[in-house]
This record gives sequence, structure tokens and C-alpha cells, in this order.
Amino acid sequence: MKKALAVLGCTLLAVAPFAHADEVEDTVKARQAAYRMLAWNTGIIKANLQGEFDAKKVQTAANTIAAIAHSDMGALYAPGTEKGKGYYPTKAKPAAFTDDKVVQVATNFVKAADALAAAAQGGDKDAVKAAFGDLGGTCKACHDDYRAK
Amino acid sequence: MKKALAVLGCTLLAVAPFAHADEVEDTVKARQAAYRMLAWNTGIIKANLQGEFDAKKVQTAANTIAAIAHSDMGALYAPGTEKGKGYYPTKAKPAAFTDDKVVQVATNFVKAADALAAAAQGGDKDAVKAAFGDLGGTCKACHDDYRAK
Repeated sequence: MKKALAVLGCTLLAVAPFAHADEVEDTVKARQAAYRMLAWNTGIIKANLQGEFDAKKVQTAANTIAAIAHSDMGALYAPGTEKGKGYYPTKAKPAAFTDDKVVQVATNFVKAADALAAAAQGGDKDAVKAAFGDLGGTCKACHDDYRAK
Repeated sequence: MKKALAVLGCTLLAVAPFAHADEVEDTVKARQAAYRMLAWNTGIIKANLQGEFDAKKVQTAANTIAAIAHSDMGALYAPGTEKGKGYYPTKAKPAAFTDDKVVQVATNFVKAADALAAAAQGGDKDAVKAAFGDLGGTCKACHDDYRAK
């Protein structure tokens, strides 16, 4: 899991558990906020694929997804946050904090987010649709193993 | 306020109030998530300015802030969300949904976020510090007028 956190950009927080409960709660809230933002922006892209395709809106949404994917998401899984409550009891399964396979799942997600941003930059609806499908696959792979239903 | 929403990239949602309460709640949650993500990433930059300066971490955080600033934030203030609960009762004051000055406040924020991302790209701590201060000023300007204490 240390390797997973390193891939996700986490260094200090991976080895230094929080001293204060408030920090745990703030981190769990930030984690939940990150996924909410991902959902909001994938929702925008989905709506544009199903209806009128506004290339600019799709591009800004894809850029936001890519930026969040590249942000310090590993720090959002810092020690102590396994049982944090946040805005609601965390849905992250214990395996999300211990399984080495998280490295690959996270790497796949970041790559797919980059590919989607590149496709959105190109402005071709079919290319965006294909890249969006690939991204969805990486989301599902993580949800299947590491998120409670 | 229509002009403000247009500046923020909102078109459809600005003129079409939600049909379902769930959509209002989801939008308020996304709004709260957006600001939580902004706070999380400004926190990363603040910590790097106060302690060891990791240029790469600062850059990814600044990029995330800029991406969120450029995302469809106007849609997060869609009609019906003035009184949404979300994760907690919204702190957005009624004026945030009606005041034409929001246009300028929002524009200033986006410009400052871009300037911070550019400074972070350059990797110079003093330049980042100055741009971060400017960004903080635009946050405060909005909080002073449009967010409940």
C-alpha cells in the first residue's frame, strides 16, 4: 500500500497518521468531495453525450476530472481515515487501504482521465464517447473491489 | 445574475429550474464539494509555503484549483439551490443568487486561479506566495458578501 500511496502522490501523510480527529474528518470530507466532483463532472459529460454535445463544456469537465485524478488523492486515504465519518460513513472498504492492487487501479484511472481530457480537447464526440467508456471502466473496477454498495 | 451565470459557464441550468428535489440536493452537494476541494488544495499550497516547498505538489494543487475555477460553477448555483440542504444547510447568502456583482467576484477568482497555476508552473516559491495571496483576496471578497459566517 505504501507503493500505492506513492503512485497517488502521497508521501508525508502516508507515514504520519493524524494527531487530531478533526484532521481525519476533514480528510474524509475532502475524499468524499473529490468523488462527488468526479461524479458531477462525469455527469456533465454523460449529459452531453446523450444530448446536445457542447465541446467546451465537455472539455472543462474532462479537464477538471484529469486535474483531480492528478491531485494528491493518495493523501485522502491517509492512515486513520479508514473509519472516518466525513459527510457520511465512508464507503471505502478496508481493502482500499491495504491492497497493493490499488496501485494499478489508480494508475489506470489517471491514464483514462488523461485520455479523456485529450479526446475532449480534440472535440470529437465519438472519441469522447470511447474515452468516457474507458474511464467508466476504471471507475467500476475500483467500485467493485473497494467501495461498499 | 443571468450575466453572472453566463460568465461562470452556465446556460441551460440557469434558465431551467430543477424538476426534482434530488437534483437540487445533488447540486448543493456538488457545490459544497467544489469548495471543499478548493479548501483542500489551498491547504496543500499553504502548507508548502509555510514548510518545505514541494514544487510538484504545489503545481498539482494549483492546477486542480484552476480546473475547478474554470468548471461549470455557475450551474452549481442553479435556481432552486438557494435553500438546498446538501451535506449541511447551505452557507450561500441569498445575494449570491441575485447580485450582479457576483460576475466580477467570480471573474476575479478565475483570473487569480490562472495566475496561481502559472506561478506554480514556474516553480518559484515567492511568485507562488504572491499569487496565493491574490487568490486568497478573491476568496475573501466572495466570503465577505456571499457566505454566511
